[in-house]
Amino acid sequence: MLSVGQTHQLTFSFTQADVEAFARVTGDTNPIHLDAEYAVQTVFRRPIVHGMLGASVFSRVLGTEFPGAGSIYLSQTLAFQQPMYVDTAYEAVFTVQEILPRSSARIETKIMEQESGKVVTAGEAVVMNRQLIPNTKRS
Amino acid sequence: MLSVGQTHQLTFSFTQADVEAFARVTGDTNPIHLDAEYAVQTVFRRPIVHGMLGASVFSRVLGTEFPGAGSIYLSQTLAFQQPMYVDTAYEAVFTVQEILPRSSARIETKIMEQESGKVVTAGEAVVMNRQLIPNTKRS
Repeated sequence: MLSVGQTHQLTFSFTQADVEAFARVTGDTNPIHLDAEYAVQTVFRRPIVHGMLGASVFSRVLGTEFPGAGSIYLSQTLAFQQPMYVDTAYEAVFTVQEILPRSSARIETKIMEQESGKVVTAGEAVVMNRQLIPNTKRS
Repeated sequence: MLSVGQTHQLTFSFTQADVEAFARVTGDTNPIHLDAEYAVQTVFRRPIVHGMLGASVFSRVLGTEFPGAGSIYLSQTLAFQQPMYVDTAYEAVFTVQEILPRSSARIETKIMEQESGKVVTAGEAVVMNRQLIPNTKRS
């Protein structure tokens, strides 16, 4: 059962093939993600990973590891603070902030570049999971 | 150039093949999205689309149509208010709320089920686009 203060981490990275597959399935073909000649003219110098692909690690972990299968996503905030690049190790870090009524929890979610520890994406999720989050009643 | 009050709409839908492709690229294999026998035992009765796949329509539109190519995603809030299903027509609706300093804009983003008009996902994006959003200075 999830409890306040509990944390979870996952190390992950994306390849350019992942970025291309994400562009195909979502239709998000913004050249900043796909076109190196375009990207070199921007502030980023090289293609960046879709913010929403990076953030999908939150959905992945919340739905498969922490708390786990059966999680229902209720909300997510996302601040894309730094660009994410392919072939770079990132760490997703989750910290339970509050157990909410009806088997829900508010969880801090962030992605850090593994080498520098710099936060690239920050936010907060609320998930419901009847098996894995205690069912407290609103007082 | 983007201006306050401007709106944009896109009709879209997902197939189960899209959901499976999204699960592969993101690693989000929560059975609620993939396993009909599992889903029938839940409140949803049948597999639901990943909330983050639904929300990727915001990234797609902001980066390719409205305002368009070159947009840099700064933030997004997401409230997953109702489940999304495959083979169902949805409408993504964008309304510019505020032009912010440094070629950025705050844009209301929502997804409605096309037939009922019911909002399934609500939120707000902030994007920067040096070509397509006016560069106002903070006073």
